[in-house]
Amino acid sequence: MSTVHPPINFCSCCGSPVAHVVPDGDTVPRHVCPQCGTIHYQNPKMVIGCIAEWKGRILLCRRAIEPRHGLWTLPAGFMENDETTAEAAARETLEEACAAVRIDRLFALVNVPHIHQVHMFYTGRLIDGRFGAGVESLESRLFDEAEIPWQEMAFRSVSFALHAWLDDRRRGSFGLHTTDLAPMPAT
Amino acid sequence: MSTVHPPINFCSCCGSPVAHVVPDGDTVPRHVCPQCGTIHYQNPKMVIGCIAEWKGRILLCRRAIEPRHGLWTLPAGFMENDETTAEAAARETLEEACAAVRIDRLFALVNVPHIHQVHMFYTGRLIDGRFGAGVESLESRLFDEAEIPWQEMAFRSVSFALHAWLDDRRRGSFGLHTTDLAPMPAT
Repeated sequence: MSTVHPPINFCSCCGSPVAHVVPDGDTVPRHVCPQCGTIHYQNPKMVIGCIAEWKGRILLCRRAIEPRHGLWTLPAGFMENDETTAEAAARETLEEACAAVRIDRLFALVNVPHIHQVHMFYTGRLIDGRFGAGVESLESRLFDEAEIPWQEMAFRSVSFALHAWLDDRRRGSFGLHTTDLAPMPAT
Repeated sequence: MSTVHPPINFCSCCGSPVAHVVPDGDTVPRHVCPQCGTIHYQNPKMVIGCIAEWKGRILLCRRAIEPRHGLWTLPAGFMENDETTAEAAARETLEEACAAVRIDRLFALVNVPHIHQVHMFYTGRLIDGRFGAGVESLESRLFDEAEIPWQEMAFRSVSFALHAWLDDRRRGSFGLHTTDLAPMPAT
């Protein structure tokens, strides 16, 4: 879930230095190439994950990469071109937790505007109960509700989705949960 | 709703020509700068719109821009950095239909993987019933269900969301509707 927004100093089409100006008919400054006219828009990225269940327990991964190395998370990552949101959720679960999952439905959408991200979490079910550690994970484990390491969670969006899922399971009815996250206060 | 993916021939950081290779620890080819090492990821973009209601009628805009010039659509457009999905829905309704809207909830999510887009439609209500034509619209109008110009709709995702909304209104209960769109067959 790292933020990957390289600076735009040069035009990716023709290699010329870009200007930062408001294009005709637009209202905000963009990186515009004075040479070939290309406007380089920058838009938020989607991070898609999965709340994968097996016999009432939830699959979490311990991160082997920064940010938040060593902390726990749901399998999740940047959505790729040419896939759907549900396919992204299944792919990330396979890549990070080596687990095949049947995706159920969109369960949570979390805006994180200050880092230009939208996080989405799908519900799903492990297909055969098998899982492992992908290259970006130190380990994966199935957790009962009482065992979930809330103090060692990597991301607030993951904690939000997990709490909502546990609440809905208690209630016996699963909805769509949304929230917006502001920057963390400095500590 | 145009697709805006300029080619990546040069590094936007340092201006060097990029290579198209699989980075270490990755599984798919990316545009990588051999000079400064920057990896230029390309990810899907979100197009966010609003099903805005006023006294039982729905607000549509007739497009003044390509693609689909002259056809009807829900107010919608590319999500910007530093905003939430709901804020994007309200901003697009203001920009394209000059209408202030109170956003209600996420209603439809449509994957369009072949053009690297995810479309989301929120429900909302006009605040004072006023609307007009923004610079990207020829006109805006409120439509009763029987008047909706289905044969002149600009985008399949918009038709999907509108049909689902009308069905849910008939049923008296609004859910979350998702679908995936494949490329249109050649005609």
